[in-house]
Amino acid sequence: MDALKERIMTDGVIIGDSVIKVDSFLNHQMDIAFLKKVAAEFAERFKGEKVDKILTIEASGIGIAALTSLYFNDVPVVFAKKHSASNLSDDVYETRVYSFTKQKENIIRVDKRYISAGENVLIIDDFLACGSAAMGLGEIVKMAGAKVVGIGAVIEKGFQGGHEKLVEKGYRVESLAIIKEIKDGKLVFA
Amino acid sequence: MDALKERIMTDGVIIGDSVIKVDSFLNHQMDIAFLKKVAAEFAERFKGEKVDKILTIEASGIGIAALTSLYFNDVPVVFAKKHSASNLSDDVYETRVYSFTKQKENIIRVDKRYISAGENVLIIDDFLACGSAAMGLGEIVKMAGAKVVGIGAVIEKGFQGGHEKLVEKGYRVESLAIIKEIKDGKLVFA
Repeated sequence: MDALKERIMTDGVIIGDSVIKVDSFLNHQMDIAFLKKVAAEFAERFKGEKVDKILTIEASGIGIAALTSLYFNDVPVVFAKKHSASNLSDDVYETRVYSFTKQKENIIRVDKRYISAGENVLIIDDFLACGSAAMGLGEIVKMAGAKVVGIGAVIEKGFQGGHEKLVEKGYRVESLAIIKEIKDGKLVFA
Repeated sequence: MDALKERIMTDGVIIGDSVIKVDSFLNHQMDIAFLKKVAAEFAERFKGEKVDKILTIEASGIGIAALTSLYFNDVPVVFAKKHSASNLSDDVYETRVYSFTKQKENIIRVDKRYISAGENVLIIDDFLACGSAAMGLGEIVKMAGAKVVGIGAVIEKGFQGGHEKLVEKGYRVESLAIIKEIKDGKLVFA
């Protein structure tokens, strides 16, 4: 998606050789008009797939998942929780995922009532890096007896190997902008 | 908003005399079709106000804030962060808020670049209880030299006093469903 690559080049802030901050439009401030176009692109990539539900993970995936739903007949969005709370049920699917940016392991949880056997689930997230969040979400979908129709990421850090791991597991992966490497402080897109 | 009250009565799960779980449609699974109507109601309540930006707090506010933006010409949405991360700037407005449901104090932060002096900011959240999240967001808006045009909550727990505290501070507060009390396991709406 060329408009997305251009936006990343214009507004992204590169930190070292592996972190790209896009919090001016994607995951702290959200440019809703722009993200609607991003969401429409997910719809284009996954057209022809039956999608009953969109699954994402808090917090940064929620906005883009909610907007993506608009292009899939307003299907429900479920976000996996990273933090326990007094208002979360005990009857959950849970798995462990490692966050690269936060450098810690989280247990992610989804209430069993919100993914059902036989459902077709599209996984959407802001970033795909080493793939552990998407892998964890995929495991939860399988635990529920549901089917992952695909995994959509707004930005992929292609040099962190997540895409390949997910494809090996049999998932269809669509990343709207793939950063092949960060070299001498510049982004190289695939 | 009658449809919202009905939905809370149908799907809400009451725990004790102060907790109401609405995670089947609002803050774990999101019923996007329904939440678009909720968002449209915020637009109705705040029509005539100039809104340059919507401010919310991760994680549960993000979805409803993103959908509310659709009814305010797709204005940008900013979500305050509760957790530090390697990809968050050091140059932030921050304040302390106490979470009733999680029973702990959080520092919430907003990057200084994403709220600017003179902006008109609408604060949106899923719940209003003791008001400390909204109060913290309001403080951040003031630190930035911007103006709070109003505070919108999907559900207010009227018995926890947040509404009054916010009104005393001079804020306009619009809650779409106000639970006056939880009595003998039943909800009483205002």
